[in-house]
Amino acid sequence: MDYKLRQDKLRERAGAARLDALLVSHLPNVHYLCGFTGSAGLLLVEARGSVFFTDFRYDTQAHEEVKDARIVIGRKPALELLGQHLSRKRKGSRSWIIGFEAEHLTIAEKKRLTRFLPSGIRAKDAAAMVEPLRLIKDDEELACIREAVKLGARLFDRALEVLRVGVAEVDVAAEMEFMARRTGAEGMSFPTIIASGERSALPHGRASADPVPRGGFVVCDFGVILGGYCSDQTRTVWVGPVSKEARRVYDAVQEAQLAATEAVRPGVTAGEVDAAARNVLGKAGLAEYFTHSTGHGVGLEIHEAPRIAAGQKEVLQPGMVITIEPGVYFAGKWGVRIEDMVAVTPTGCEVLTPTGKHFIAV
Amino acid sequence: MDYKLRQDKLRERAGAARLDALLVSHLPNVHYLCGFTGSAGLLLVEARGSVFFTDFRYDTQAHEEVKDARIVIGRKPALELLGQHLSRKRKGSRSWIIGFEAEHLTIAEKKRLTRFLPSGIRAKDAAAMVEPLRLIKDDEELACIREAVKLGARLFDRALEVLRVGVAEVDVAAEMEFMARRTGAEGMSFPTIIASGERSALPHGRASADPVPRGGFVVCDFGVILGGYCSDQTRTVWVGPVSKEARRVYDAVQEAQLAATEAVRPGVTAGEVDAAARNVLGKAGLAEYFTHSTGHGVGLEIHEAPRIAAGQKEVLQPGMVITIEPGVYFAGKWGVRIEDMVAVTPTGCEVLTPTGKHFIAV
Repeated sequence: MDYKLRQDKLRERAGAARLDALLVSHLPNVHYLCGFTGSAGLLLVEARGSVFFTDFRYDTQAHEEVKDARIVIGRKPALELLGQHLSRKRKGSRSWIIGFEAEHLTIAEKKRLTRFLPSGIRAKDAAAMVEPLRLIKDDEELACIREAVKLGARLFDRALEVLRVGVAEVDVAAEMEFMARRTGAEGMSFPTIIASGERSALPHGRASADPVPRGGFVVCDFGVILGGYCSDQTRTVWVGPVSKEARRVYDAVQEAQLAATEAVRPGVTAGEVDAAARNVLGKAGLAEYFTHSTGHGVGLEIHEAPRIAAGQKEVLQPGMVITIEPGVYFAGKWGVRIEDMVAVTPTGCEVLTPTGKHFIAV
Repeated sequence: MDYKLRQDKLRERAGAARLDALLVSHLPNVHYLCGFTGSAGLLLVEARGSVFFTDFRYDTQAHEEVKDARIVIGRKPALELLGQHLSRKRKGSRSWIIGFEAEHLTIAEKKRLTRFLPSGIRAKDAAAMVEPLRLIKDDEELACIREAVKLGARLFDRALEVLRVGVAEVDVAAEMEFMARRTGAEGMSFPTIIASGERSALPHGRASADPVPRGGFVVCDFGVILGGYCSDQTRTVWVGPVSKEARRVYDAVQEAQLAATEAVRPGVTAGEVDAAARNVLGKAGLAEYFTHSTGHGVGLEIHEAPRIAAGQKEVLQPGMVITIEPGVYFAGKWGVRIEDMVAVTPTGCEVLTPTGKHFIAV
């Protein structure tokens, strides 16, 4: 990964906002800028270089992973190490302004930060500066994401092998997660959703101990983390004898999913993609049952920008990676959701998820 | 769980701090106070009742889980729903002060909160008020924790069945996590550590694709979540022909672990428990290789108060649940850690982890 380039782009943004340095505290942003994947660390991006602060637990890991930043390890919390670094640095020159990530620093951390800052250095709220960079994935990132999506997709094949009436939802999830681990995933990108029967109408129905009942949908929403990047996919399977209504709703959701995917290309707004899905479901008389937005960005985090939702003005650009996941939910009865990941290309989009979307009954 | 009692205790604390209400934004605290386990929600604890705010995705779940609070569901973010609630509430009476959790609200969230507050209501930093309650586990919590620890301990038996020279660390983790799912765990309480060879000297060596080499320790540090409560356990196993030094270090770590456990009783400080472990390792000439603290509290979160570390003045009380986990690490060579969970009782402590600590070579 070209961490140097990413940091340089960030320096431009920080400079334009009249900041002398930016303190990056959000760990996915730290990861993006210097490669560190541990769970405690701060990156200070200064005009002429960067410094990474962490505690002794991450000594070996930091030296293995962190690129394009000087590494400072200590027995104290990273915020205090930062304060010491700045105290040594500042000697009588003009006053400095350090931006911090307002979305990712707590009130208490801000207080501690202020306490550790030497005189002549001021901390200032900064708007999100790393996230706009992360919005556009470069070729190396796209390659990582393709691998994560491919690995993730294999879990659905495994689910189909074990999904049947009477099997506990968690046992399906267990088989998928076991396969993920055995095939190299670092972890799951979110708690696996295997939602059967009435639970399929819950947009966030984590796998429970309930057995899969006959005559209903099972929503399978799952993802892996591979090389730091997340995958996200949903398929919905019918169990038992098929009803006409189930088939009709499934087909409408599939049509909405395809229509939204068709709409994805540079220059289109996120809201227009959402509308493409919503229009199809509206014509099928199902608009009111599509209760969430059409999708979201995916990358180092499972949910990132852009939001693919009604009215969103964000204009799609090549390199964005998003989900397209319309759903229809009849509370107390069942629900259907179909989700792919797609990458915006110069001319349209690349559907990353390889799994078919045909109606499957087991 | 007696949510009403917990909220009443919190009301006392909030009242003593001259707050008219406390806004609870940290999700484990929300869970503790009203039972909600979803990933978005706010609880406002007022003098005469509580109100829980979440968005429509959690409608069903909130109504199933939330106790002793009125539920407000909307299409807007919870902070905005809170603002609406307060605007309706406040009509010309005296001005109100709402405390918020300074450790758990970001600068940006605070700004949004302030924007949504009607005039006459002021937001104020509050010290941690829920965490001190969570520090002492009640009988129902202790029962949950015992179950989680028991389930977690079975994973080590599984690890022993598969751990041998040449097996990938992740494959050991995969078998353990598969068993966790199949036996009812909601998830793992942290990324499973299976660290073999030189990696055993990393205190945070997540399972990698590396095969387990002959002639070294394998540190297995793992935990499950069951009924919302975390387990945490470490055992270290030798692989191949045993060296005298390995045996000597293992025995010293075990002795340190037992000495610290012996020290646990009401009235003793967390620092004294840490010192008990450190003294044993000091006498064995290993003090400098024990690079972390002796333990931490465990409950709804994997790391919570108290810290069992050098100089900590916190006095142990019945109902606290902590880990005792000394370790010795030779960088570039190998490491050993042994960890149990213990509950402080009126007369001493109850070792929750049932697994033996004898030296095992596979």
